[in-house]
Amino acid sequence: AIEEIKEKMKTVKHKILVLSGKGGVGKSTFSAHLAHGLAEDENTQVALLDIDICGPSIPKIMGLEGEQVHQSGSGWSPVYVEDNLGVMSVGFLLSSPDDAVIWRGPKKNGMIKQFLRDVDWGEVDYLIVDTPPGTSDEHLSVVQYLTAARIDGAVLITTPQEVSLQDVRKEINFCYKVKLPIIGVVENMSGFICPNCKKESQIFPPTTGGAAAMCQDMNVPLLGRVPLDPHIGSRSCLHGHYSCHSLFKEKPETGRRAARWLSVHKGIQEFCNLHQSKEENLMSS
Amino acid sequence: AIEEIKEKMKTVKHKILVLSGKGGVGKSTFSAHLAHGLAEDENTQVALLDIDICGPSIPKIMGLEGEQVHQSGSGWSPVYVEDNLGVMSVGFLLSSPDDAVIWRGPKKNGMIKQFLRDVDWGEVDYLIVDTPPGTSDEHLSVVQYLTAARIDGAVLITTPQEVSLQDVRKEINFCYKVKLPIIGVVENMSGFICPNCKKESQIFPPTTGGAAAMCQDMNVPLLGRVPLDPHIGSRSCLHGHYSCHSLFKEKPETGRRAARWLSVHKGIQEFCNLHQSKEENLMSS
Repeated sequence: AIEEIKEKMKTVKHKILVLSGKGGVGKSTFSAHLAHGLAEDENTQVALLDIDICGPSIPKIMGLEGEQVHQSGSGWSPVYVEDNLGVMSVGFLLSSPDDAVIWRGPKKNGMIKQFLRDVDWGEVDYLIVDTPPGTSDEHLSVVQYLTAARIDGAVLITTPQEVSLQDVRKEINFCYKVKLPIIGVVENMSGFICPNCKKESQIFPPTTGGAAAMCQDMNVPLLGRVPLDPHIGSRSCLHGHYSCHSLFKEKPETGRRAARWLSVHKGIQEFCNLHQSKEENLMSS
Repeated sequence: AIEEIKEKMKTVKHKILVLSGKGGVGKSTFSAHLAHGLAEDENTQVALLDIDICGPSIPKIMGLEGEQVHQSGSGWSPVYVEDNLGVMSVGFLLSSPDDAVIWRGPKKNGMIKQFLRDVDWGEVDYLIVDTPPGTSDEHLSVVQYLTAARIDGAVLITTPQEVSLQDVRKEINFCYKVKLPIIGVVENMSGFICPNCKKESQIFPPTTGGAAAMCQDMNVPLLGRVPLDPHIGSRSCLHGHYSCHSLFKEKPETGRRAARWLSVHKGIQEFCNLHQSKEENLMSS
């Protein structure tokens, strides 16, 4: 299977894993924004793969609930949000969004293998893989399969509070153990701007210095900090992809927020380009 | 193993599973508060078991980081927070809290079996089991083991927004499939009280009516709604169990919050007592 996946992934230039130790830190929202952000350039082909088998949130966040996967001669077709943005999730294979996928590890691994091998991804610049929380079957499998096919690295999402940071330290150690490069850490929900008094307050107080201190301690790059936004994950993203997309278009109210996100996206792209040119140098030398 | 667990669990009166579809909805914080709340009565013996093998938060939330499990003739000893409150977590078995437990399903199942069979729980009134998010190995294993030993049911934790509610619907369907009684649903982080202007606002807007509407739709009881509190999970709980404990003692600032929690705890106790008397009736008839 690894050889088949390696072959399939030849047309996929960059592969990025989105990880978090804890659930509910905004990992899927981040993945969705990253996909939309990269696809802003219409010459960039983006693929978003959701391997959270038991709790897929990507269909809802991307406004794709009720969509189905089509079978073609060359495999399963992703669901396209834009011409240059295709999405795949176990959510598209369920008869109802409330269906529980009660699967033990081996069955989940089989599904991930199918997603990588049997989906007609086509020519892709960025494959973003959204993972479930933790360090178990899904993570081991996807790293095993994608390492063979050259993976750029992982983006780690956290919130500022210590319970979440502790789990990100576990993820960093996971990356070291499985030799997965770390692109960087993103601190989500850094603050909440009260809709009434407009004052920003810390919902999850960074008692231990937040992600910045942790990154310094662990010697990993901090890609940026993005504020908690009640619009993200609700009115905008949850009611259709057009409004989620529009975070990057609306001005000027959303401009400040969008700028913070864009700077994170830019950091990821730069890492990937550097990674690519290093590889090319290696190959040509 | 099931027979051994059944034998072991004979001294454990009530067994409550705490579930959530999504991570980060405050499941572990809820479990910790429930344990402390029930242990307020010094005649009630409480045990808290953390089966989140890859991301154990209970040691930190209970102020027990760095504690170790002791081996005695009758098995592993839980770590005691109070005379009547014992805790067990894979976190107590790690050499560093940042260690990643990179285990696939079967190894996690083995650990859960050991927690139920090899821990010297003693005479316990309430065993609270904190689970990882999802519906996979850990959930199937603990339900399988505890069903044989008579389990009271599950408490489902959610936040008000649709992404979380959707995952709770999956958990409800999971409960139906594995025949696990549902004690009820708790909505966490219902609102955030701005420390500046004291106005409560919705951080996670309940676009689909929140847990109340979902419970009505799915015909399951709503145990209550508790507000997001920057003190919970940070200054108080994360800096030692005494302050976490004190939520139920401080007055009057915390009185309103504590009342909401206590009413949820009362609902759970009533369900358990009813469950017990039903069983006793069945046995005596």
